[in-house]
Amino acid sequence: MTQATITPLIMAGGAGTRLWPVSRDSMPKQFIQLLDDGLSTFQATLLRVKGAPFGRPIVITNHEFRFVVAEQLQALGIAGDIVLEPERRDSAAAVAVGALLAQKQDPAAIAVALAADHVIMDAAHFRADCATAAELAATGLIMTLGIVPTAPSSAYGYIEPGTSLGAEGASRLSRFVEKPDQATAQGYLECGFLWNSGNFVFSAGVMIGELERFAPDILAGAGASIDAAKTDLDFIRLDPPAFGAIPKTSIDYAVMEKTEKAGVLAASFDWSDIGAWDSLHAIANKDGAGNVLQGPIVAIDTKDSLLRSDDMLLTAIGVKDLVAVATRDAVLIAPKSEAGRVKALVEQLKAQGRPEASEHLRMYRPWGWYQRIDLGARFQVKRINVKTGGKLSLQKHFHRSEHWIVVRGTAEVTLDGQVSHVHENESIYLPIGCTHRLANPGKIDLELIEVQVGSYTGEDDIVRLEDVYARA
Amino acid sequence: MTQATITPLIMAGGAGTRLWPVSRDSMPKQFIQLLDDGLSTFQATLLRVKGAPFGRPIVITNHEFRFVVAEQLQALGIAGDIVLEPERRDSAAAVAVGALLAQKQDPAAIAVALAADHVIMDAAHFRADCATAAELAATGLIMTLGIVPTAPSSAYGYIEPGTSLGAEGASRLSRFVEKPDQATAQGYLECGFLWNSGNFVFSAGVMIGELERFAPDILAGAGASIDAAKTDLDFIRLDPPAFGAIPKTSIDYAVMEKTEKAGVLAASFDWSDIGAWDSLHAIANKDGAGNVLQGPIVAIDTKDSLLRSDDMLLTAIGVKDLVAVATRDAVLIAPKSEAGRVKALVEQLKAQGRPEASEHLRMYRPWGWYQRIDLGARFQVKRINVKTGGKLSLQKHFHRSEHWIVVRGTAEVTLDGQVSHVHENESIYLPIGCTHRLANPGKIDLELIEVQVGSYTGEDDIVRLEDVYARA
Repeated sequence: MTQATITPLIMAGGAGTRLWPVSRDSMPKQFIQLLDDGLSTFQATLLRVKGAPFGRPIVITNHEFRFVVAEQLQALGIAGDIVLEPERRDSAAAVAVGALLAQKQDPAAIAVALAADHVIMDAAHFRADCATAAELAATGLIMTLGIVPTAPSSAYGYIEPGTSLGAEGASRLSRFVEKPDQATAQGYLECGFLWNSGNFVFSAGVMIGELERFAPDILAGAGASIDAAKTDLDFIRLDPPAFGAIPKTSIDYAVMEKTEKAGVLAASFDWSDIGAWDSLHAIANKDGAGNVLQGPIVAIDTKDSLLRSDDMLLTAIGVKDLVAVATRDAVLIAPKSEAGRVKALVEQLKAQGRPEASEHLRMYRPWGWYQRIDLGARFQVKRINVKTGGKLSLQKHFHRSEHWIVVRGTAEVTLDGQVSHVHENESIYLPIGCTHRLANPGKIDLELIEVQVGSYTGEDDIVRLEDVYARA
Repeated sequence: MTQATITPLIMAGGAGTRLWPVSRDSMPKQFIQLLDDGLSTFQATLLRVKGAPFGRPIVITNHEFRFVVAEQLQALGIAGDIVLEPERRDSAAAVAVGALLAQKQDPAAIAVALAADHVIMDAAHFRADCATAAELAATGLIMTLGIVPTAPSSAYGYIEPGTSLGAEGASRLSRFVEKPDQATAQGYLECGFLWNSGNFVFSAGVMIGELERFAPDILAGAGASIDAAKTDLDFIRLDPPAFGAIPKTSIDYAVMEKTEKAGVLAASFDWSDIGAWDSLHAIANKDGAGNVLQGPIVAIDTKDSLLRSDDMLLTAIGVKDLVAVATRDAVLIAPKSEAGRVKALVEQLKAQGRPEASEHLRMYRPWGWYQRIDLGARFQVKRINVKTGGKLSLQKHFHRSEHWIVVRGTAEVTLDGQVSHVHENESIYLPIGCTHRLANPGKIDLELIEVQVGSYTGEDDIVRLEDVYARA
């Protein structure tokens, strides 16, 4: 039998806070380098499904992450469809949209729905398991990739395998069970239950059929959001009203717990969902004392700890089983055993209105990024990095003037209709109220320092008159 | 008997690293706010000896700290003599210089030599004890202020009191003993030994006499360094060659262990030398869970810990007995019980050539301060704050141009001999190689952002052509 092409549906819309302060709503963990492979888990997921038997990937993400998704695809030289959810609607909506799009491309499509924030080191076994699952999916089964538990964890839902499907590790799916307490989990382990990884392999047509049967409103909403979608800049923007009307449900609840077509394949690969900092410690490379040290760290007499710093010097003396994570504007310290409480901490920070809860200092934009480097009562200083060809919106401000000093590359500045070029070590003044636009016409990144002076320097004092990225 | 005036000799030249990363060579702990009283320990020491029976203080410090000393005195409205040591020569040299200067002012002077980095909350008992010690000093004794131990500490030297001197708590000093192990310390406690705090009360003439007898080279060197001293800007600059020739010895070794005139007064006040972060935790105000929380801190389920942050958000979950200190460029984490090892950590950082070991991001200068806010391959950005009347040196650079953007106040800029005024929201460009000078002629602080662009932006690319603070 000729092997069918498998269409990857990469689910990259999550906004987890369990790895705060590194993962934040404005840049969640799937887009961040967590291991020392130089890749985000989203990128590692893309590479894992690159080449036959996998086809062109469909990435389903939140519209807020469209530019980082595009950039990370581009960095790998991988082409894919980027589908933008206007809001978060949980996994049933995403799977429905993905299945419909995959079927449009190929009525007989087999799809693999994959979370973008899982770590699987053993790509060969992963690919082999996908191929096995795809063969079973072609027979009409919706295959879950079940993980052989390494411990009686109470952090995951479990799957009870049923009768064998013949292929090694493949069974009918007997039932899903909720996250258990640890004693129950121990029992599940002994009975051969598997963890529910939330990754599935299925025929698009079969999934659509089961959605039709068990969740017709989800399928209808997904279809309507695709029919009314707008395509721009290589993005497929799902229609907001149609997508927003879809019930917020997981694919487990919507389909998997109800269908009679569910199967499970016990994965032969390693797996982690990096659910918290202790999980990252468990899978990352360690020194002789069991420490994961990422960034500028000096640790004396320190054991079995995760120390990570983006930027500043992080030092530790005599600590054990600790997590310490330092970013430019926030530091987290917790025993590894308490790492699961980070989400609750972030909720507390959000309730206090602290910007560090959700936003990074470095903000990514379609044209590059900016980062606040100083803030005073009546001024703010930013470092701005514009990619080759990048172009900010034509804009004006009511409360601030700006001084731009180019420290690298060349800026093309439009000031009240006049275009000029500002070179390295030159500056330009943008008086309050003027219309202005910044672009990088050069061959290297443009870096400049922006000094804002005025009575109010908030991000929301911006009137966008025109924008090549459709943000005006 | 009329009470004599007591001249405070404030020893403020130390450069402790035990409270790193807050205390660094460039700004040691005595000048930093450690408690929530809004004062440095140097300032608290000055206030403790303000008013009768204390006279005008003599502050002995390292020349590097002259401007911060002057500023902190000024902030309290206290006038004093500021004596500058050109290099570190330990306490015998400082006491000799202080005694000679006190005697110059008044041949019958009684002096109290005080460390600038000790914490004493109970000022009333402190002053009463000084008065008692001063009366005994007037009879020819050199009185040590001994501290009644609160624990069998191995961190301090001990003093064995001898025969009573009549006044409550006052005795002849039987002997000094070195820092003991803890078992020995327990024995000392039971025998009524006291901690050696390194604070003394004496007649200047008596101290000079004993130095003459036991350490004539120290006394001669101190005298020569005063005779050849230069006075400028209210500073008494001890003569470098003469001062540098003084043997490096503590006053304990040079005089106190040898003299027959030593007495000790068991202090009736509380005392801490804040020898490490755990000591600060012990004396600072705590919340209901035993935590000292200084700065922007969010702590969940945290106990008996010291969490301090200058600037960024510091968060902790489920920690206990921990020290975590975050500054803009360095973070320290250690169990409280390991806090004594910070000094060793800093030595390791120095050996690695890390600037965070010794220098703060904010650097104090006679005219105000500057702080690096960003650094790139060919640029650096600083925030510069110039006090009213402050004037930087006339200078030039070989490797960088500078852009100054005034964000508050008014700058007087001299550029190749031309003077102009740059106001808020205006900028000026200083081309590479030009001579330039910045001054604040206004009534409020001048704040500006400096963007340096060039192949080398190190601090040492500066040629000072003229300087009102005698640094050219």
